[in-house]
Amino acid sequence: MTAPFQHVAIIGLGLIGSSVARALRACLPQVRVTGYDTDTDSRTAARALGFCHDVNETAAGAVVDADLVIFAVPVGRMAQAAAAIAPALSPGCVISDVGSSKADVAAALSAALPGYPIVPAHPVAGTENSGPEAGFATLFAGRWCILTPLPETPADATARVDALWTALGARIEVMDAAHHDLVLAVTSHLPHLIAYTIVGTASELEEVTESEVIKYSAGGFRDFTRIAASDPVMWRDVFLTNRDAVLTMLQRFNEDLTALQAAIRRGDGALLEDWFTRTRAIRRSIIAEGQDDPEPDFGRRH
Amino acid sequence: MTAPFQHVAIIGLGLIGSSVARALRACLPQVRVTGYDTDTDSRTAARALGFCHDVNETAAGAVVDADLVIFAVPVGRMAQAAAAIAPALSPGCVISDVGSSKADVAAALSAALPGYPIVPAHPVAGTENSGPEAGFATLFAGRWCILTPLPETPADATARVDALWTALGARIEVMDAAHHDLVLAVTSHLPHLIAYTIVGTASELEEVTESEVIKYSAGGFRDFTRIAASDPVMWRDVFLTNRDAVLTMLQRFNEDLTALQAAIRRGDGALLEDWFTRTRAIRRSIIAEGQDDPEPDFGRRH
Repeated sequence: MTAPFQHVAIIGLGLIGSSVARALRACLPQVRVTGYDTDTDSRTAARALGFCHDVNETAAGAVVDADLVIFAVPVGRMAQAAAAIAPALSPGCVISDVGSSKADVAAALSAALPGYPIVPAHPVAGTENSGPEAGFATLFAGRWCILTPLPETPADATARVDALWTALGARIEVMDAAHHDLVLAVTSHLPHLIAYTIVGTASELEEVTESEVIKYSAGGFRDFTRIAASDPVMWRDVFLTNRDAVLTMLQRFNEDLTALQAAIRRGDGALLEDWFTRTRAIRRSIIAEGQDDPEPDFGRRH
Repeated sequence: MTAPFQHVAIIGLGLIGSSVARALRACLPQVRVTGYDTDTDSRTAARALGFCHDVNETAAGAVVDADLVIFAVPVGRMAQAAAAIAPALSPGCVISDVGSSKADVAAALSAALPGYPIVPAHPVAGTENSGPEAGFATLFAGRWCILTPLPETPADATARVDALWTALGARIEVMDAAHHDLVLAVTSHLPHLIAYTIVGTASELEEVTESEVIKYSAGGFRDFTRIAASDPVMWRDVFLTNRDAVLTMLQRFNEDLTALQAAIRRGDGALLEDWFTRTRAIRRSIIAEGQDDPEPDFGRRH
């Protein structure tokens, strides 16, 4: 396969950045991969793990001669990260990222790097773990990667980023940033907010001890703790940068929760049973679409 | 091992009832296991699967000569199921169940079967699947089983039920029914209610299609769909019978969600980051306690 890029620089070597590097080395071994992380320990770990040809001591140094730069930093740090590399960028270098909110990121990258072709991207994949050690090459296999090119982004740049993610095993969808932010508010941001909330609630009750919560978590609670263990800084920034869409979806959720609460209060079993029956079908569709495993109980060992 | 019972009758052969039968056959093969289910198809399936020595055509027939009866029916059906077997019970037969709410069930069983030793039990284990085919013998291994004996329950009966569940691999805790209902409201009932709510919310939006929700569910939403695929009748009854504790916990959750919502609205990143950092620790404790698998992403294949 002809690689769509010769030299990819990755700024931010955490779970996602290091997984992109590993996937590039596995799927497109002819591509040079350089990297940088603001955290000294992460740079040291990245060098030891060897998923980049070179881990540079500066962000500017990492992007020299690159024809694609991918920002894999918390979305609130995109502007700062882009400013740091601007002086060292080669002409025509394509700019992309892996952030979970897109309108805010597109604005930040455009402002910091005027004139460069910008192709914001969001691979819808991840785990609850963080850091360079947590990444792996197959993270994106079979997962969707959403591209949200700007109106002024050259079609050729979008096509090359599409080709890159396709080579890493992802399935590509293109949409505008505003729609992306609404879709992800419901499929990702609201679930994380709810999970963070309930795990916090459960850990601070007077009547039930934290030890009891932990012991009896197999009744359902433990499923929420996985995503509530996700990176705090990354998620802080997601909620701050996609505020309006998150608040809109949260309003809908609250309306539904109030309706179910009222049904419980008045003993309306028919409403509850009907609601709970409808939600079963969604899981079957997610499994059929290949976005989750069919094994019961997430394939947990028994 | 001397078995604590000679003949166990299981009323209700769904996920939990059939798992108890299978676990008995595997762990205490000298115990006779009889069963009954109100659903004809479930009786036929149970016979074909062979996890009972005998699947009877009536509930009363199944309990003849049993020294332990376990009700594994939705908690709203306990009274009716108990009434159906009352005429056929042997003197001194111990009565137990596997229901997810305990105060309501204890009252129903006491009223229907006065004078019998009653040991309500709740194995905190399950999967999102239902029916006789969904059960398996190791479902309770390493999981907690909570016993909530009544003040008048003879200590000997409680000890025998304890010994039975211990033989099936469970870890035993004894507490009063009211405390059980509060603990499970937060570790199981509230998580199910929240999951049912958000999956319903996501499937009925105007701005985002159900197809998009399914495609991009790997961003976090899919984790909620597992427990929102649980048995609708069972969960309808849990919310109706443990109403007060569920509404109390829901109130706490709503207060916390409102606080996080306000933090997002006013851009309070410090509050969000602090909250999200605290919730990480809970998951580590759950894994350390053996109540969940340590593999990232629930060990999903990538």
